Amino acid sequence: MRVFNFSAGPAVLPEEVLQKAAAEMLDWHGSGMSVMEMSHRGKEFISIADKAEADLRTLLAIPATYKVLFLQGGAIAENAIIPMNLLAGRSTADYVNTGEWSKKSIKEARKYTSVHVAASAEDQGFTYVPAQSTWNVTPGTAYVHVCTNETIGGVEYQWTPDTGDVPLVADMSSHILSRVIDVGRYGVIYGGAQKNIGPAGLTLVIVREDLLDRALPITPSAFHWQEQAASDSMLNTPPTYSIYVAGLVFEWLLAQGGVPAIEARNVAKAKLLYDTLDALDFYVTPVRREDRSRMNVPFKLRDESLDAKFLEGAKAHGMVQLKGHRSVGGMRASIYNAMPLEGVQALCDYLREFARANG
Amino acid sequence: MRVFNFSAGPAVLPEEVLQKAAAEMLDWHGSGMSVMEMSHRGKEFISIADKAEADLRTLLAIPATYKVLFLQGGAIAENAIIPMNLLAGRSTADYVNTGEWSKKSIKEARKYTSVHVAASAEDQGFTYVPAQSTWNVTPGTAYVHVCTNETIGGVEYQWTPDTGDVPLVADMSSHILSRVIDVGRYGVIYGGAQKNIGPAGLTLVIVREDLLDRALPITPSAFHWQEQAASDSMLNTPPTYSIYVAGLVFEWLLAQGGVPAIEARNVAKAKLLYDTLDALDFYVTPVRREDRSRMNVPFKLRDESLDAKFLEGAKAHGMVQLKGHRSVGGMRASIYNAMPLEGVQALCDYLREFARANG
Repeated sequence: MRVFNFSAGPAVLPEEVLQKAAAEMLDWHGSGMSVMEMSHRGKEFISIADKAEADLRTLLAIPATYKVLFLQGGAIAENAIIPMNLLAGRSTADYVNTGEWSKKSIKEARKYTSVHVAASAEDQGFTYVPAQSTWNVTPGTAYVHVCTNETIGGVEYQWTPDTGDVPLVADMSSHILSRVIDVGRYGVIYGGAQKNIGPAGLTLVIVREDLLDRALPITPSAFHWQEQAASDSMLNTPPTYSIYVAGLVFEWLLAQGGVPAIEARNVAKAKLLYDTLDALDFYVTPVRREDRSRMNVPFKLRDESLDAKFLEGAKAHGMVQLKGHRSVGGMRASIYNAMPLEGVQALCDYLREFARANG
Repeated sequence: MRVFNFSAGPAVLPEEVLQKAAAEMLDWHGSGMSVMEMSHRGKEFISIADKAEADLRTLLAIPATYKVLFLQGGAIAENAIIPMNLLAGRSTADYVNTGEWSKKSIKEARKYTSVHVAASAEDQGFTYVPAQSTWNVTPGTAYVHVCTNETIGGVEYQWTPDTGDVPLVADMSSHILSRVIDVGRYGVIYGGAQKNIGPAGLTLVIVREDLLDRALPITPSAFHWQEQAASDSMLNTPPTYSIYVAGLVFEWLLAQGGVPAIEARNVAKAKLLYDTLDALDFYVTPVRREDRSRMNVPFKLRDESLDAKFLEGAKAHGMVQLKGHRSVGGMRASIYNAMPLEGVQALCDYLREFARANG
């Protein structure tokens, strides 16, 4: 029996995608091979990769002036790869610090450049997104980096920053494809796949073509955006099976009606969960209302001594991975695209039931 | 119907492994989740990763003084990551150049250090392994790098170099687990998974612990061996599903009798194929007899105008991916662990039949 899996990532995938992957495991489309066994340069796999890219371009309405790269290493690797690829001739990069993931990005960038923190929400425990009017961006900086959804803190940008001529670089790992975005307002969008895209081990990079000539000489070829763009992400062997599963997820998303349709569902799921939490004094939510993430919902029991009991009861109800990140404690429900409304309803029922029984 | 897939990588996997992966796709061991959906920090996935490492340690008899890392990026990424991790306080690294993969490693290392080519087989078109007596290793060099099986040229070390106190670093991507090796004679062993280990997107690094303190400050955290070793390869989200499939391959190998048993089969498969090619004047094999690879068998038709006909006929017989690498042309049969003897027999039958019909 399948459970409702609230993991922050790797995370729940659409059941239809898993069924298709299982059915095609030994013989993809009459090729006599698993996708795992295909040469990345064979016509079968190239058709898979091309379709995945085309479907992603449709889903996000990616302009033709942007390259789509399927790489490896996840967001933590990309935290180093980004400065390597954007710093030639520049000596500073600006970062907005909204939580744990921003902090990781800043720490890594300091290996390659002087980092200027243009704004920070650390003063209030990373419970909000600093308004753009408070940002202090260095003139001539290489780029401004933001994390548009903090997976651990549960803080999400509900607006798009405007950094003028300075390229805006966004870690969208944990909410990409969950809402409509205007790709043209970003210089670089990146993310690990293991939330809304597919299996861990795949990194998506969407980069504006005019930014491809800024790599430092120390950039490894496998992570050199310009070289990878020139090779259609096949300078090295790409993570072929992960790209295939991501492609199945993209097909599933299109069949759901695309990003606007899934966004409407995500809005409804998040509203249901936050409304339930707000109505129960038994629970506390830390994030400022207007900056609440639709994807990652952190909350605490007022009486933390009940945490273990809460988690055990949830598991008995078929709901797993509700424990908050070890750095912040409490609970966290990640409700990505593939989490059905029924999962959120079940969680809300349990939230009420547990509060009633233990309040 | 399954084909005989002679791809150089990604490559054929054991059918039993694919069947098990398909059967477990929606619900791994009653967890209610696919392995793809599991948090890498949950007890289910940690048990999978721990077992994969333990089985690999058994298969290769890895000494306790070595760390096993499951990373990302493949051998081309590792070509940059190796100098980054080993160059602190050193100014030179030595490389033995035996073919296309050695050349890639050398090119990448030049971004980080002065490279000294200790020996090269370029003088004879990369058709042999230079004897160690001809190597000219720089005193005090950071390490000596070898590619112990050249996937494209089909040249394989049948002996273990002795570099004394200088760490020996070996790219074993395309023959690891195909033969018994003495891990203790190497400083670092690495490889992309997509030949004898599992799906593309997983990189294996086996590193002697005393070499973990030599990283340059520019080393990205995700590829910093010491930091990854301290985090059990979970500093970033690992490629979880690829590790799972690799674990299934390790279990399959143990069930076959381990590396000595699979090596005996590989010796027999390679002998059958080379003997068949040698007996037919219709084909030419470029590599010096004692340096022939058991895994990758390049050969040419004396009459290259028949190449397309040969490949079409092979496909009609259910044999695919026999075309040689674009950089060398001709044909190449990759016969990794998972290629059954029946596949090699079918190829030998076809080699004779085609020669008879077109000779």
